Amino acid sequence: MMVKVSELQRYDAIKNRYKEAIIVHPIMTGGLVPREAQEKLIKEGWIGIGYSACFNCLKGRSSLISKPPIRDFLADVAEFFGGDVAEHTFGCRAAQFAVMKTISDYVRKKGEKDYVNIVLADSLCHYTTAIAAEAAGLRLAEAPHSGYPEYRVEAERFHQKIEEIKGETGRLPGLIVVTHVEPYHGNLNPAKEVGKIAEEYGIPYMVNAAYSAGVMPLSMRGLNADFLTVSAHKSMASLGPLGFLVTNYEWAKRAFELSTITTEWSGRAFGNKIPNIFGCSVGGIPLISAMYSFRHVVDRVKRWGEELAKIRWFIQEMEKLDDVMLLGERPHNHHLLHFETPIFWEISRRHKRRGFFLAEEMIKRGIVGLHRGLSKHIKLSLYGLEWSSVKKVRDAFFEIAEKYVKEFKLDYSLNSEETHGE
Amino acid sequence: MMVKVSELQRYDAIKNRYKEAIIVHPIMTGGLVPREAQEKLIKEGWIGIGYSACFNCLKGRSSLISKPPIRDFLADVAEFFGGDVAEHTFGCRAAQFAVMKTISDYVRKKGEKDYVNIVLADSLCHYTTAIAAEAAGLRLAEAPHSGYPEYRVEAERFHQKIEEIKGETGRLPGLIVVTHVEPYHGNLNPAKEVGKIAEEYGIPYMVNAAYSAGVMPLSMRGLNADFLTVSAHKSMASLGPLGFLVTNYEWAKRAFELSTITTEWSGRAFGNKIPNIFGCSVGGIPLISAMYSFRHVVDRVKRWGEELAKIRWFIQEMEKLDDVMLLGERPHNHHLLHFETPIFWEISRRHKRRGFFLAEEMIKRGIVGLHRGLSKHIKLSLYGLEWSSVKKVRDAFFEIAEKYVKEFKLDYSLNSEETHGE
Repeated sequence: MMVKVSELQRYDAIKNRYKEAIIVHPIMTGGLVPREAQEKLIKEGWIGIGYSACFNCLKGRSSLISKPPIRDFLADVAEFFGGDVAEHTFGCRAAQFAVMKTISDYVRKKGEKDYVNIVLADSLCHYTTAIAAEAAGLRLAEAPHSGYPEYRVEAERFHQKIEEIKGETGRLPGLIVVTHVEPYHGNLNPAKEVGKIAEEYGIPYMVNAAYSAGVMPLSMRGLNADFLTVSAHKSMASLGPLGFLVTNYEWAKRAFELSTITTEWSGRAFGNKIPNIFGCSVGGIPLISAMYSFRHVVDRVKRWGEELAKIRWFIQEMEKLDDVMLLGERPHNHHLLHFETPIFWEISRRHKRRGFFLAEEMIKRGIVGLHRGLSKHIKLSLYGLEWSSVKKVRDAFFEIAEKYVKEFKLDYSLNSEETHGE
Repeated sequence: MMVKVSELQRYDAIKNRYKEAIIVHPIMTGGLVPREAQEKLIKEGWIGIGYSACFNCLKGRSSLISKPPIRDFLADVAEFFGGDVAEHTFGCRAAQFAVMKTISDYVRKKGEKDYVNIVLADSLCHYTTAIAAEAAGLRLAEAPHSGYPEYRVEAERFHQKIEEIKGETGRLPGLIVVTHVEPYHGNLNPAKEVGKIAEEYGIPYMVNAAYSAGVMPLSMRGLNADFLTVSAHKSMASLGPLGFLVTNYEWAKRAFELSTITTEWSGRAFGNKIPNIFGCSVGGIPLISAMYSFRHVVDRVKRWGEELAKIRWFIQEMEKLDDVMLLGERPHNHHLLHFETPIFWEISRRHKRRGFFLAEEMIKRGIVGLHRGLSKHIKLSLYGLEWSSVKKVRDAFFEIAEKYVKEFKLDYSLNSEETHGE
């Protein structure tokens, strides 16, 4: 205990330097908590209690609590996403881990007669899918994508890959995973088509909807999925860390199986706990925030069309900047945008702040969330912003480009005439 | 999506009915966030952002972030608990899981020549220890306790049990676990003595300090531990879910090993991610709250003696209630108190609210946190309360006892004369 209290004031002094800024970080825009929900978190004093949800816990698991109505909330979350049963988890990664553990146990118990210890995922799955698979002792195989510039994953590629695995092992992969919207370019993958293939082969099927569940309409039943994994702090206007695993009645029995162990000497049993989610996933203030935000979330997915209009207008504007190009599918179906921006890269080569200039120039204009140091490619999201803010972001990019094209006398033509948006 | 927005107002309407109450729930008292820290969380706007810590993430893992100073904070947390390296986790249960995974891999790689897939724990370990072991494919063995009424676990029992396992399997258990303070009676277990035994045998050693790290002085180096698992929302005045895994340099290499997988087709690697903690443990508002509370925590452990004085005074008072008796060790060394309360059980048998009467009578008096429905045994904590509140809790029990002894004409003698406390 050599820590000196006098030096700890630096932690007291931590500031949020972006309190007033427009946030365009693609992992953050779907997780901003509505002002009304924030006010309730403060007013009701949840901000002062580590175990916010546990006052009236009678059975030792947060998902069984009725005051506040967590049990009902989880039933509504399941319903909202077109599933039968939901449990909250420590984020989408923990939900994926629960699925992987379920499959790993299933494959082992069902015998290795029918299934092999392989998860077949799209080749742009989130890294947490790969890590969850590894942690549960499953090997990851990938359905290829089409490469630059669209990076599409066709359902047919899953079909081919299943046949390949079958040919090599004589068995089927234990799980198929599709990342509903992938985290690199915001492509909406063909989850429904893959769902049909999974059904035809009789392979369990998980859709990772970390970037989509809570921002756009989505039904796991409609996708033929057995598991839907969700990130509340990414896409459900919630504090983190919090996620959900939604499943159907059939798989809920396995994924949410209660603990059956009895300790060797003391004979203790923990029959209300769910091992795959570490017994109880606690919840805390993130869970309370998700309940306060839920009505907003249910409502906002209905306005997804308005979001798409903003997104597509913004893409059109950005591509007026000479040789800026959106990567990923066209038309674009998600708020995560990935642009190739050679113009900013050219500027960075001449700028004393190198690649950092772009994020820093944006911050000067009250816009935060570009990855510091990157200028050749940028990723951003305008989800949930007012039209006026969307235009402000567009204008900022144009201003920065114009400023430096002039300053460094670069050979770029800029068409800064704005197309009518809203 | 059958969820009706009109019916979702019930979630908006969630109230914290205990906002002004004195909290005595034993898992909650160490996790209350100081008012100053709460105010900063609000003022800086952290309450509105799901991914609060991620604005300036450059390397894809929260523990590497320097703005806010998470990396330095983790180094200070490690130092504070007498370790070398710390990572934050989704709670103590996730920290324990990381240890179990580490050991499981270690035993497998080191070969089964020296160690067997068994974790030897005290027989009053928290259920999350058993579940984490199971999830990592380890079997739990238990060192017996002395039973009613003290439930002591002697270090010698670990010695015996190791020999037993060695005799049966020819190998040593892969891990020894001691719950620093156990969750049933608040006994302070002989962690240092067990640490010596672990060292003699060369067995990795984990101390689970969920109930103690952050409320009382503690050094894992002093206990000879290789791993210390900590709950921030239980004992570090922090929002949940958040925990820490603290370890030494030797074990950090294994526990916090970076991801080495490369995906099969796309060749992606995730070299900054730590698989045992799901890649990155996000952090969110709990992590910010822990940083704001840290100075308070470092400071408060120095005042543990004052807490013990309150605790022991309260025990003495409670035992004046005819046949009320503290379970667990004497003198008592922790704020978690477990009383046998036959007097309240007798009352409950006559009360129309049955076992619920006690928690409800306390709530009427502004004191919340007794487990609803229990009256034969009660568990509570007065950690961090002012003397005036401690006395208020004491008086509430006496008032309730007196009221019903009179009402139901019970044969109990009550010595309600108060011994001078503060």
